[in-house]
Amino acid sequence: MSEDDDVLLHRDGPFTTITMNRPRRRNALSRDFLLRLTEAFREAGRTDALGVVLAANGPVFSAGHDFADMSGASHADVRELLRVCTELMRTIQSVPQVVVARVNGLATAAGCQLVASCDLAVAAEGAGFAAPGGKGGWFCHTPLVAISRNVGRKRAAEMALTGEVVDAPTAAEWGLINYAVPADELDKAVRDLLERATQGSPSSKALGKQAMYAQFDRPEQDAYAYAIEVMAASSQTPEAQEGMAAFLEKRRPNWPA
Amino acid sequence: MSEDDDVLLHRDGPFTTITMNRPRRRNALSRDFLLRLTEAFREAGRTDALGVVLAANGPVFSAGHDFADMSGASHADVRELLRVCTELMRTIQSVPQVVVARVNGLATAAGCQLVASCDLAVAAEGAGFAAPGGKGGWFCHTPLVAISRNVGRKRAAEMALTGEVVDAPTAAEWGLINYAVPADELDKAVRDLLERATQGSPSSKALGKQAMYAQFDRPEQDAYAYAIEVMAASSQTPEAQEGMAAFLEKRRPNWPA
Amino acid sequence: MSEDDDVLLHRDGPFTTITMNRPRRRNALSRDFLLRLTEAFREAGRTDALGVVLAANGPVFSAGHDFADMSGASHADVRELLRVCTELMRTIQSVPQVVVARVNGLATAAGCQLVASCDLAVAAEGAGFAAPGGKGGWFCHTPLVAISRNVGRKRAAEMALTGEVVDAPTAAEWGLINYAVPADELDKAVRDLLERATQGSPSSKALGKQAMYAQFDRPEQDAYAYAIEVMAASSQTPEAQEGMAAFLEKRRPNWPA
Repeated sequence: MSEDDDVLLHRDGPFTTITMNRPRRRNALSRDFLLRLTEAFREAGRTDALGVVLAANGPVFSAGHDFADMSGASHADVRELLRVCTELMRTIQSVPQVVVARVNGLATAAGCQLVASCDLAVAAEGAGFAAPGGKGGWFCHTPLVAISRNVGRKRAAEMALTGEVVDAPTAAEWGLINYAVPADELDKAVRDLLERATQGSPSSKALGKQAMYAQFDRPEQDAYAYAIEVMAASSQTPEAQEGMAAFLEKRRPNWPA
Repeated sequence: MSEDDDVLLHRDGPFTTITMNRPRRRNALSRDFLLRLTEAFREAGRTDALGVVLAANGPVFSAGHDFADMSGASHADVRELLRVCTELMRTIQSVPQVVVARVNGLATAAGCQLVASCDLAVAAEGAGFAAPGGKGGWFCHTPLVAISRNVGRKRAAEMALTGEVVDAPTAAEWGLINYAVPADELDKAVRDLLERATQGSPSSKALGKQAMYAQFDRPEQDAYAYAIEVMAASSQTPEAQEGMAAFLEKRRPNWPA
Repeated sequence: MSEDDDVLLHRDGPFTTITMNRPRRRNALSRDFLLRLTEAFREAGRTDALGVVLAANGPVFSAGHDFADMSGASHADVRELLRVCTELMRTIQSVPQVVVARVNGLATAAGCQLVASCDLAVAAEGAGFAAPGGKGGWFCHTPLVAISRNVGRKRAAEMALTGEVVDAPTAAEWGLINYAVPADELDKAVRDLLERATQGSPSSKALGKQAMYAQFDRPEQDAYAYAIEVMAASSQTPEAQEGMAAFLEKRRPNWPA
């Protein structure tokens, strides 16, 4: 996998970087590429890495699906492609690591959906975000599922209907990404956020991340019914007990492996 | 319909403007007026117009329901009025056109709900938004359904409980409207947004808009299950195929009628 | 109850202040303390007070659950604690009064959840908000239910995963609180907001507040189905009729007791 040309996996200390490496195709998300990206997340997910950066080579983060693959494809083939694509989004939310998108350039359609589906996102100020299907012939239905869960409804509608590019500072203001920073500070900002987001017990955080997605979008009382059970059960874990003991004993915790 | 004094329909090129024309009644939403507005949206919806502007004559956008009609009305009559009112909101979201509210003045109660229910909204800086039932004797229950789907919970609660006016710049910051602009730039800003929002295939965009509302507020995986099917099916439409072909052939697309 | 050292109830004109008074324990939410707070809200809820302020003595608003109580507690005991804690959050949302959090210092974990669960919140600029479980051994599952219903998803994830403190001005920008003000203006800002939020008929507002929480998070058409019935039924109340009559007769309304 790490030898693959299209998807690069690089482990550096506690963090794994998954790099989309199809710069000449603007990191377009063909079916094979989606499957390799999903497998890369699963592979990283099985390691003891604490965090994953989703990065991209070339000037474009990702242009979404590749029209060269899609034009003339059958209903069944497109449906399968979208299923595979949604599986990547779900995998990002289900791996135990904190996943940060490092957005260096344009992220459009399913490429924008990728950013919206990562736990956190940092972009260079010159990056942009769009759901361009709205100004074409094929609406960005599935990307809007992810985008509209990050930004308000009027803003989601503006992105969806105009199909135009929202710049990174506006995306940060709207909550689609966490930070927009000067391009030469992008690596540092990603690293800083990842270090801040990977403190504490990895297994506790993994459960927390996964449970958080499960309760989003549900009526508040349903969400509580679920969260109470997860939180009560997890109170009995070695890491919860160690965290409390360390706090009370005023020492640094030692997280179980 | 276009002859009607209360509701004016004006077609100008690709866009239809529906103007509320009860300025002396502050464009209050009586039952008959709601029915005529709904019929105006349905009439515009059946045309090949690409976009609809919802505008208002007079200094007030709309003051909501008319207490002169409501005072002493029976439970059944009020229930019917609210059903008719909700049907207008649903119609705005279901017509194939992009609908932009052009808010020139105060939009209160069901008038504010109208703005919240349009796909997009642009307001003059002097306009304002309120759910005044909160400081009266009859709470704005149904307006809050629409308002609270546009702004965050604490802000919805502030509008609901204080009943006071939120100015247009704050409404833009909160996401209740897309833009607040100087009054003398309102027409231009509405036109610019509508032109940007009506690029591309009309039928693809119509499906996109309608499907977007269907997936809002649902748990993410439910939303995906639905969006995958709509997006896969729509890949087989002539406009999707034309959009992809034009992109690959580097030419302008010709959208099917 | 009002004699209790831990929870102080103070009625001042139309408003009741419930003060958390465990400053040396950083207003930690032990089971007994949660029960007393819940009872304080119920007691205030039975009075004719129009609004409730939730305040805190000492430099910390509330540090959340007390690890001294939790360390070594059984699954069943923790589950019961979380049930009691969630009951407090639900009680705040169900009392007829408008509840404003007056946040003078740090609000962390279930303390932050308390702020997120109040109808409205005002904080001193030096206050801060955190879900610190994310950098410990026990994730803030239940606090995130409330926090993520106030702020966007990427911001909720940042708070959840980093566990770090968000300052009050940022919390206001994100919608977790309504206002961040200089510390010496905190009492005035809370009072001003409460006065603005308690105009009008108390019983109408109580129903409005309770119904608003019931429709949040539901698909829009479900929310309308519910809100139409509540709004139609409430049109027949004396306060609705009095509000409309007063408006039409251009006089001040007299709200029924």
